[in-house]
Amino acid sequence: MTNPYAVGLEQNPANYEPLSPLSFLPRAARTHPNRIAWIHGDRQATYAEYYQRCRRLASALQAHGIGRGDTVSIMAANVPAMLEAHYGVPMTGAVLNTLNFRLDASSIGFMLEHAETKILLTDREFAPTIAAALAKVTRKPLVIDIDDPVYTGPGDRLGVIEYEEFIQQGDPDFAWQRPTDEWDPISLNYTSGTTGNPKGVVFHHRGAYLQGMGNVLAWNLPNGPVYLWTLPMFHCNGWCFPWTISAVSGTHICLRRVDATKIFELIDAYGVTHLCGAPIVLSTLINGAQRENRRFERRLQIMTAASAPPSSTIAAMEALNVQICHAYGLTETYGPATLCEWHDEWDALPLDERAVLKSRQGVPYSVLEGLMVADPETLEPVPADGQTLGEVFFRGNIVMKGYLKNIKATEESFRGGWFHSGDLAVMHPNHYIELKDRSKDIIISGGENISSLEVEEILYRHPAVADVACVARPDEKWGETPCLFVDLRAGHEHVTPDDLISHCRQHLAGFKVPKTVVFGPLPRTSTGKIQKFVLRDRAAKL
Amino acid sequence: MTNPYAVGLEQNPANYEPLSPLSFLPRAARTHPNRIAWIHGDRQATYAEYYQRCRRLASALQAHGIGRGDTVSIMAANVPAMLEAHYGVPMTGAVLNTLNFRLDASSIGFMLEHAETKILLTDREFAPTIAAALAKVTRKPLVIDIDDPVYTGPGDRLGVIEYEEFIQQGDPDFAWQRPTDEWDPISLNYTSGTTGNPKGVVFHHRGAYLQGMGNVLAWNLPNGPVYLWTLPMFHCNGWCFPWTISAVSGTHICLRRVDATKIFELIDAYGVTHLCGAPIVLSTLINGAQRENRRFERRLQIMTAASAPPSSTIAAMEALNVQICHAYGLTETYGPATLCEWHDEWDALPLDERAVLKSRQGVPYSVLEGLMVADPETLEPVPADGQTLGEVFFRGNIVMKGYLKNIKATEESFRGGWFHSGDLAVMHPNHYIELKDRSKDIIISGGENISSLEVEEILYRHPAVADVACVARPDEKWGETPCLFVDLRAGHEHVTPDDLISHCRQHLAGFKVPKTVVFGPLPRTSTGKIQKFVLRDRAAKL
Repeated sequence: MTNPYAVGLEQNPANYEPLSPLSFLPRAARTHPNRIAWIHGDRQATYAEYYQRCRRLASALQAHGIGRGDTVSIMAANVPAMLEAHYGVPMTGAVLNTLNFRLDASSIGFMLEHAETKILLTDREFAPTIAAALAKVTRKPLVIDIDDPVYTGPGDRLGVIEYEEFIQQGDPDFAWQRPTDEWDPISLNYTSGTTGNPKGVVFHHRGAYLQGMGNVLAWNLPNGPVYLWTLPMFHCNGWCFPWTISAVSGTHICLRRVDATKIFELIDAYGVTHLCGAPIVLSTLINGAQRENRRFERRLQIMTAASAPPSSTIAAMEALNVQICHAYGLTETYGPATLCEWHDEWDALPLDERAVLKSRQGVPYSVLEGLMVADPETLEPVPADGQTLGEVFFRGNIVMKGYLKNIKATEESFRGGWFHSGDLAVMHPNHYIELKDRSKDIIISGGENISSLEVEEILYRHPAVADVACVARPDEKWGETPCLFVDLRAGHEHVTPDDLISHCRQHLAGFKVPKTVVFGPLPRTSTGKIQKFVLRDRAAKL
Repeated sequence: MTNPYAVGLEQNPANYEPLSPLSFLPRAARTHPNRIAWIHGDRQATYAEYYQRCRRLASALQAHGIGRGDTVSIMAANVPAMLEAHYGVPMTGAVLNTLNFRLDASSIGFMLEHAETKILLTDREFAPTIAAALAKVTRKPLVIDIDDPVYTGPGDRLGVIEYEEFIQQGDPDFAWQRPTDEWDPISLNYTSGTTGNPKGVVFHHRGAYLQGMGNVLAWNLPNGPVYLWTLPMFHCNGWCFPWTISAVSGTHICLRRVDATKIFELIDAYGVTHLCGAPIVLSTLINGAQRENRRFERRLQIMTAASAPPSSTIAAMEALNVQICHAYGLTETYGPATLCEWHDEWDALPLDERAVLKSRQGVPYSVLEGLMVADPETLEPVPADGQTLGEVFFRGNIVMKGYLKNIKATEESFRGGWFHSGDLAVMHPNHYIELKDRSKDIIISGGENISSLEVEEILYRHPAVADVACVARPDEKWGETPCLFVDLRAGHEHVTPDDLISHCRQHLAGFKVPKTVVFGPLPRTSTGKIQKFVLRDRAAKL
């Protein structure tokens, strides 16, 4: 028998087009040319203007030799040039590499070298780091300064031309080309990595397009949201929101720095409806709101990730008229790839129970095809019992292409046909996952696994504890023992290590109780994460 | 210079999965296992049950030899089996062919033959048509009856087994396979076509997935909508809503027949939030509401297509607390592919101006990459002046694979790298399109396409008919009805309109039978072509 569908139904230019998030912008510009695309300080651009500016950028880059296979890097706050780079750079066929402005010069230098950056756009605020980084780089990129009028602090111009002048050289009607293949790279994001050099995560057009859709479905994004940039765009391309917001013709409110007063001012001025941020953004808002004794008149939607919001945060947010969407993902999954999809019937539960449910990282995004918690070696899924620890694995179209020029790390991360996250979790009976720890943060004492998060959670219940981290300390007898680093609240300096240890003993199994307690402030990364590797070093030397 | 992105970043099972709308269902079933997936009469299924029933169907079909490249046809009202066929059939790798239950036996017979149908699921209500169609088919399919308890009218069982019994044979945990290629066919929908035999439009998994997303964005569909099936599922797979609704874990309310009283009852009983339908559905609702003097307490969203809603309809709908989304598309574009995307500032306009704006077919869906109004020969876009007539062209991932076993028609429809719709429109200065004329031979009655050529062909078989033209006559209830202009042969002047209408009734499906007959000579152009536009004007004035 022949298959009647096997002939005469091939792909052609009418029925096949490579998926790319770049297509969202011309659609928004044609449909809503006069809608405001971005606002920054006293500047703003309509969608028609935004699209023209992106084409100017693409045209000017191409005139400077940028094309397929090239990398353009950008070191900037959440300014319009950063948004525009998300379109202008890939419109030339090149790859956008966003740099974390909290990093040091040698990390940035490594990235510029490794990415083979041809052009670097750099915000004047970060000139000292960039100048030092460029000094280390062998192949010097062409440098373009972003001299944002909103920024009035120190910092030299380092380049040959300023961004606004540069894009004025470009053609506003530039006939940019869509990618010929949706698998083509669109961006490059370096992960801080825990050991060795940063790894360059490569996204493709297909994944960025699908994540654009995925964010809309996950968050029920309406047409025309007003989105405030509290999340750094250098984080996995701002979780793909520079593209997502165009898919729904929304308005970007730019923001250089997370500051509660400024955030409240922008929310009031522009009717912000949505924003994203790590828990630090949430606590900034809560503290600010308590100081100013305020509540949002319009319901504000906040997507948060990185760590589960505790019940006190959820309660404070509800009081502020904020709805929290809890998501989870990694740079390797284009940002959020799971979400704690809410059930209406959960609304009726008491706060504590709601907080427990909300703290879970949940279920796959609509555009993620596979999510499991499994044995890291055998890839056998753990039972959905809410107890058995396993590693989180991802599979699907919003998993990265791989790590740039690092075949070994790429192969390791994809072993067995799943992406290995390195995060440890349990699978609850309702098929919602709950993170327990990074695998490297697990403490193994006498052959037993101890979740550092579980220990920390107990410590956070103690009124004296402001900040805490639990790490492994090498031990001759046990292999490792839990070691606490604690920053005490002001006025609680009288609390002793024994006080905290006996508090733990009341709530934890004996083998999980820390053996060592060290007081003092905790070291954090540029993105606000506690640097546990620093603490592990300290613990080893105790 | 080597391209650093050219190596080590290939597709693998962790980062590439063929797109398929089938993935929406397991996700909904895992996330919301206890949410109601469908309600029909006094039966209902949760998402866990729905997914199991679909897997049972797939398993039972596979046990009966169904697999890749096979066609399974279904002739049914909007019942659960119809929804389940949208998953169960493609889960075997086979193609779902939905049949229009308003068609006559010879059309259905042609389709079964042409599609090489191996298994036919058929609703007992349509047994007479199917029995007659099967009598004409050379390769007899295996027939499975759908004996819906909600249907209590006449109609024999024709097959070897009833649907519920059939799926009980299947494995509820059947390990179905995703398509190996997202370009694989998922469904086959016959269009009435303007000339000759119906053409079989083939959809692929990629397009059905993207249209699933596209509908969500077009309609701002929230999570968990309650969707009422007023649109026949046999129309381009119900505009892809059997898949779309699973993408947002919504509830399907089944409905065998459009009936105002029943619709109001279901809206009240289940809190229906969304429904789709041709203008006939809108007028049925309006008339029913006026009769019963009612208004919906909760805002109801209705997506309509096929012809623009007039201002009286929009006003009546507003009074009913209904919001209209006006869309447009063809079977070849997976249903709606443009929409009249609303601008908030238009809300302030007076009703007449709002109706003018709302009557436009609008802008491309987010998932449609190209839409233009252009010269049919040169494909040169017309100016965006709201005046110059051109043909509507589509390009992108929600354009069909092609016509089954009809390379000539496929090639013609894709000439120049665009899909030729055959519809005429203007492009307004704001880049919203407005249809001016359907492809001139088509009559749209109650949302169904009627080919005037097909009707004329039947009339020409009548010995009294010398010359005939069939055109659309505007009709309040049906939108349009077929109107005949007939020049009788000398000596046959005794023939009456009723004679011709009963002749048609013998050879045509009921909805295709002309409602009006006018005798007299036909106006012709200098080259001898009948001037149908003159007749359309006359028909409008009757």
